[in-house]
Amino acid sequence: MANRMPTSIHSYPMIGGDGPHSYIRNSSYQKAAIESVRTKTREAILAKTPNFDLNIYKIADFGCSVGSNTLDVVQNIIETLKLKRQQEENKGDNNEHPEFHVFFNDKPDNDFNTLFKTLPQYYLDREVFACGVPGSFYHQLFSRNSLHIGHTSNTLHWLSTTPEDVCNQNSQAWNKNSIHCTNLVNEVTQAYKKLFEKEIGAFIEARTQELVSGGLMIILGWCLPDGVKMIRTWKGVVFDMIEDCLIHMAKSGITSVEKVESFNLPIYFPQFNELKEVMEKNGCFTIEIMEEVKHPMEDMPLSNDFIASIFRTTMHGVIEEHFGDGVVDELLDRFAKELTKHPIDFKDCQKDMQYFIFLKRKTD
Amino acid sequence: MANRMPTSIHSYPMIGGDGPHSYIRNSSYQKAAIESVRTKTREAILAKTPNFDLNIYKIADFGCSVGSNTLDVVQNIIETLKLKRQQEENKGDNNEHPEFHVFFNDKPDNDFNTLFKTLPQYYLDREVFACGVPGSFYHQLFSRNSLHIGHTSNTLHWLSTTPEDVCNQNSQAWNKNSIHCTNLVNEVTQAYKKLFEKEIGAFIEARTQELVSGGLMIILGWCLPDGVKMIRTWKGVVFDMIEDCLIHMAKSGITSVEKVESFNLPIYFPQFNELKEVMEKNGCFTIEIMEEVKHPMEDMPLSNDFIASIFRTTMHGVIEEHFGDGVVDELLDRFAKELTKHPIDFKDCQKDMQYFIFLKRKTD
Repeated sequence: MANRMPTSIHSYPMIGGDGPHSYIRNSSYQKAAIESVRTKTREAILAKTPNFDLNIYKIADFGCSVGSNTLDVVQNIIETLKLKRQQEENKGDNNEHPEFHVFFNDKPDNDFNTLFKTLPQYYLDREVFACGVPGSFYHQLFSRNSLHIGHTSNTLHWLSTTPEDVCNQNSQAWNKNSIHCTNLVNEVTQAYKKLFEKEIGAFIEARTQELVSGGLMIILGWCLPDGVKMIRTWKGVVFDMIEDCLIHMAKSGITSVEKVESFNLPIYFPQFNELKEVMEKNGCFTIEIMEEVKHPMEDMPLSNDFIASIFRTTMHGVIEEHFGDGVVDELLDRFAKELTKHPIDFKDCQKDMQYFIFLKRKTD
Repeated sequence: MANRMPTSIHSYPMIGGDGPHSYIRNSSYQKAAIESVRTKTREAILAKTPNFDLNIYKIADFGCSVGSNTLDVVQNIIETLKLKRQQEENKGDNNEHPEFHVFFNDKPDNDFNTLFKTLPQYYLDREVFACGVPGSFYHQLFSRNSLHIGHTSNTLHWLSTTPEDVCNQNSQAWNKNSIHCTNLVNEVTQAYKKLFEKEIGAFIEARTQELVSGGLMIILGWCLPDGVKMIRTWKGVVFDMIEDCLIHMAKSGITSVEKVESFNLPIYFPQFNELKEVMEKNGCFTIEIMEEVKHPMEDMPLSNDFIASIFRTTMHGVIEEHFGDGVVDELLDRFAKELTKHPIDFKDCQKDMQYFIFLKRKTD
């Protein structure tokens, strides 16, 4: 397999990234970010994986979605496990060819068809065994003690739903004047935080069941540095711009004020220390690594096209669900125009943080 | 789970089955056929399954496609295993609640999205663990000794491709005057038979690797009673009608004579004794049951709508691949009209045969 598994990242056209300049710029940014995470993952696995001495390695990507990200992550994990094994073989420990079983998990409405059609040839040749596992990762998805490495990337800031109180007119946490958790109103923040803690707790508990003793869980995601409010980050600014567009659309009668007031994104960026607390709470894992991911191009401002494209890709579904498809396209168009007229001033924003967490399952 | 798993068959609208009379008629026919197979499967599992005494049962449906068929088959297998376990528990053998892992296999271009979206709730509640496994079942798809029960239904008469010689002008087996294996020309039959034997051999060999000692393989499919020629069955008559339609379309310039002459369905119905030979050849299974499936309504003539609908559902892909999408819709329309003008005379046809095979993996 080593000879046949390509080492390059699969490249798919970025949605909305049509300008050659912005494409090159943003793809360099993305490549730098991906490379940084890939290196970190490789180093952590080499340093922290126990000598499983297995014939079969079972690896799951939770919330895999489709495309190059999940395929690349899994490939990196497999290559690193092979490398580690080679190192052990040189010490005479092992000379079997192990099997790798990969479980791609996402909700049943994920586009598994596209994922399966874009699997590299070595999956189809069954050098690596691939399965799709439909289901919510807030529940146990695999047998007890059956997984060796779990991974999830950019999934845990998505809540399964919006906290009830932020949509409730009679609650102190009613988030009438914003569509997200700005961190300006304590009651709103607490409502979001409570749901986040409950859901990430359920996620970790489910993985506790599934991972073998010594098994690893790699978590990548977005949070806020301690003390930073969401509203001060460029992502917070984007959410506010979206809200402005929605209000204008309500005034033009394209949607209603009530619809806008009752809309809240099911997204929560925890502060770094909140995240740490949740990770420590379960008690069945040791936190081997928990740190910020940095890369050489991280301070480069993002282009408008890139921001519009990212927003379109990630938010289309949740907006469409609340407002209907007539509104979502109009909104995304208005937002793109608004960005061109008033580009985000990155110097004026505070930074959010990409985190890397590496957990090891304790022995029961 | 026993309380929540519905016992009825899931019902989806039949494609093309719009006339109330024909729907009722054909659905009764189908129900009778399904019920007959279901009873046979249940009895065979109860009588022949070893006392696995397992915590986890792994079940695979090879070539699952989508819809009620695969879900119903798997549900029947699980319910039967539970029943068998209950009987054993009453004897005091076992009182654990086992897990059931179901692997839905089909080629990567199968519509797994629809399959996953239509999974009954007990899968989403993880009372049964479901995976999609993309890949060709002519290769090993699972680890050695990892499956307990395999199943495949109406898949093995489909060859992975058309035998090379039947499309080759310079071969004795060139099948110029037909689009299928009529069994009228010995060289054509031999070319189809050779490929069929190779592929079914590969299928059985792959399952030999995957099934545990004592593991079961249930195979349902279509063949011909010994001595019956395909051309004499109603399915053979249908293929000939399709060919006539294609020839008329070539004359009208909608497709070309060369296209029609080079088209051959990748379908082979073996004679019952040929099939038996192939099953015995591998040697790693005992043939516990190999017999015809009969049901009370099998001699009832099928309606034109039903035949047109079945043909459309099963043949659309293979015709489109050869002739392009412009031709396939026109062809299916012409065929439906032709059927109305000249309905099939079932009394004049010889019967093909639905077979049921139940294999048990020998101990190595």
